Amino acid sequence: MSKVLEQAKKAKDASKILKRATTEQKNAFLNALADSLVMNSEKILQQNRRDLGENKDLTTAMRRRLELSAKGLESIAASVRVIAKLPDPVGATISEWIRPDGLQIKKVRSPIGVLVCIFESRPNVIVDVAMLCVKSGNVVIMRGGKEITHSNDILMEIIKESLEKAGLPISAVQQLEDRRYEAVCELVQLDKYIDIVIPRGGEALINNIVKCAKVPVLKHFRGLCHMYIDKDADFQKAVDLAVNAKTSNSATCNSIETILIHKDTAGLVLPKLVNELVKREVEVRGCDKTREIIADENKCKKATEEDWSKEYLDLIVSVKTVDSYEEAVSHIEKYSSGLTDSIVTENKNIAQKFLKDIDSATVLVNASNRLVDGGEFGLGGEIGINTSHIHSRGPMGLEDLTVGKYIVVGEGHIRK
Amino acid sequence: MSKVLEQAKKAKDASKILKRATTEQKNAFLNALADSLVMNSEKILQQNRRDLGENKDLTTAMRRRLELSAKGLESIAASVRVIAKLPDPVGATISEWIRPDGLQIKKVRSPIGVLVCIFESRPNVIVDVAMLCVKSGNVVIMRGGKEITHSNDILMEIIKESLEKAGLPISAVQQLEDRRYEAVCELVQLDKYIDIVIPRGGEALINNIVKCAKVPVLKHFRGLCHMYIDKDADFQKAVDLAVNAKTSNSATCNSIETILIHKDTAGLVLPKLVNELVKREVEVRGCDKTREIIADENKCKKATEEDWSKEYLDLIVSVKTVDSYEEAVSHIEKYSSGLTDSIVTENKNIAQKFLKDIDSATVLVNASNRLVDGGEFGLGGEIGINTSHIHSRGPMGLEDLTVGKYIVVGEGHIRK
Repeated sequence: MSKVLEQAKKAKDASKILKRATTEQKNAFLNALADSLVMNSEKILQQNRRDLGENKDLTTAMRRRLELSAKGLESIAASVRVIAKLPDPVGATISEWIRPDGLQIKKVRSPIGVLVCIFESRPNVIVDVAMLCVKSGNVVIMRGGKEITHSNDILMEIIKESLEKAGLPISAVQQLEDRRYEAVCELVQLDKYIDIVIPRGGEALINNIVKCAKVPVLKHFRGLCHMYIDKDADFQKAVDLAVNAKTSNSATCNSIETILIHKDTAGLVLPKLVNELVKREVEVRGCDKTREIIADENKCKKATEEDWSKEYLDLIVSVKTVDSYEEAVSHIEKYSSGLTDSIVTENKNIAQKFLKDIDSATVLVNASNRLVDGGEFGLGGEIGINTSHIHSRGPMGLEDLTVGKYIVVGEGHIRK
Repeated sequence: MSKVLEQAKKAKDASKILKRATTEQKNAFLNALADSLVMNSEKILQQNRRDLGENKDLTTAMRRRLELSAKGLESIAASVRVIAKLPDPVGATISEWIRPDGLQIKKVRSPIGVLVCIFESRPNVIVDVAMLCVKSGNVVIMRGGKEITHSNDILMEIIKESLEKAGLPISAVQQLEDRRYEAVCELVQLDKYIDIVIPRGGEALINNIVKCAKVPVLKHFRGLCHMYIDKDADFQKAVDLAVNAKTSNSATCNSIETILIHKDTAGLVLPKLVNELVKREVEVRGCDKTREIIADENKCKKATEEDWSKEYLDLIVSVKTVDSYEEAVSHIEKYSSGLTDSIVTENKNIAQKFLKDIDSATVLVNASNRLVDGGEFGLGGEIGINTSHIHSRGPMGLEDLTVGKYIVVGEGHIRK
């Protein structure tokens, strides 16, 4: 038996136990984990420094993503405690009704089973995934980025100790031991043991997983997100929202890459907006109409056709001046990755129309795309942002890690 | 461009329109379809007779599944009208809340997009799938069984006419034109156009789809269903329920294949139960303990190990006498296909325990497994019974053909 198969079998066995674990047991795990993260702070930071030391060729942005601090660990521990306080989704009623003949039908939440979660970099992810999965009764096999193996190893050690303290099977949270790509591929084919795979990361990674997986893949795809500034937009809101959606953390998938602006408001908004962006070192790439308004080459370079389909994940933004609402919607339909798109407008009818017309996982009105996040939504965290049109789109929290199960109670009811 | 790709592209284009179709338009389609099914009754029956005539080597059971009648068509039309009267799931609120800072978050139902549905035999399925998909705003490409191509062709013609009458794109409901297996395989790889595939049918078919699909597969797997008669079962309910769950239509996936019975009640229940089953021409295969109670070889043959994992889909049942509730649960855990399992008991604690312990898509207490059906549940129909641990388990109706979409409304809310 291969090592991978062995891990999958252990996961399935653990799943049978975890599915039936009480809320108290699961919360005991979370509280033990939170305590342990703070208590072992120095030990964890040491391993994190080891990762950073061994990966000298990282960019500054990357180093920032990987680096842990005592304060950072405290905030991770705090998020674990938040999850402990949230209601247990398992067994919660989704809907219930009684048939005319008295048959009682109820749909309740049950754990999905065994998840595979593949992610890159940031060391908080392993804790986020573990806390969400265990609380929702799911077993998880993870594979994190190679740049932080030491950090992940020590965190996994702490997770296992916490599982043990709570009397839960230590195989409930696993790291894929075999780090070869072939091992991932083998794992996601084991549909007898694995229920779904959630790959977070680059397009190539996701496409490879899709190619070899035999279990459903919930794609956590790239974010090519848009903000459309309507002709009825509030001037100040438009500037503030666009600046926030682009610059508050440009390396994240919910940052915008393209600003669409109605021609009737472009002359008013763009000069101020572009100034604010340039002040924050954003490179602006505009269409011809945009460049008629912002003629300064230092402030606004020429956008090419390729810019509309580029996920920069950096301080770069493309700007297109559109003739109409319809042109904005068509552009978004053509180029959006379906993660999150927003509109800035004071016109309620246009806002409602936009919410219907745009079929992205999250659509916003007068709010920054950067708010699309499990924590910001009040879910206590997220296992990722699902862009597949299945199961549950958008930020996935505890409830999204469950699936309906029918419970039917009769008094001798038969099929006639 | 291949024919398959062409169909997929047309489907995607139609999806953009169907997603935004009004409830009135969708209901207009349904009412036109219901009218047309009745009006063209003779024409449809003629094509159905042609199918039966061309497939002379069918079993009687198979012929019964394929055969349409004027009365049958009327009942299909009636089910279409039921769907027209059900509320439109698209846009319905799943949940909503307001964040402490006033940000409004709402999760609404939106169509999945483009579905592929693969099924065998029964000619009502094409209408069921079309009515459920269109009402829920989904485009569907179907591939039905080869035994009823003429029936399906005429029904598809009527569906397309009805779409046209309602002003909806005729590409919203399609049959895969290329009937080669390779064509299905090509289709389910087109993840740019297709969102999910729902294969209903034999294990080999499903496994083949899983192997080549690049889109998530909602498996509608075989039904190896159990009924456990507890020691606290009501004698008459136990007999009636087991007889109904086995014999009301043994060819369906929600029929039971194995009866588990507690040793303390076996002596009382089995003689009567086996008599009733034998009277209905059921072949009973029992374990050794069962055969000690039913010693007559003509009434109860010897069950082999293989019987516990066999989906008969026929008038055969295996019976196992168990020493305890726990033995019954272990047996179900080991052999159930996860579609539906039931318990007969008057003991409320044991009933509640069973509902938690058994992780099948539907678990029943004192009700026949045969009730696990979209129509019986009041969903107006079903596209199938999902056994994958994702999206929505059990009978899938209108709501289950949607997926959540977040709508966020702020007043200039930014990420801090």
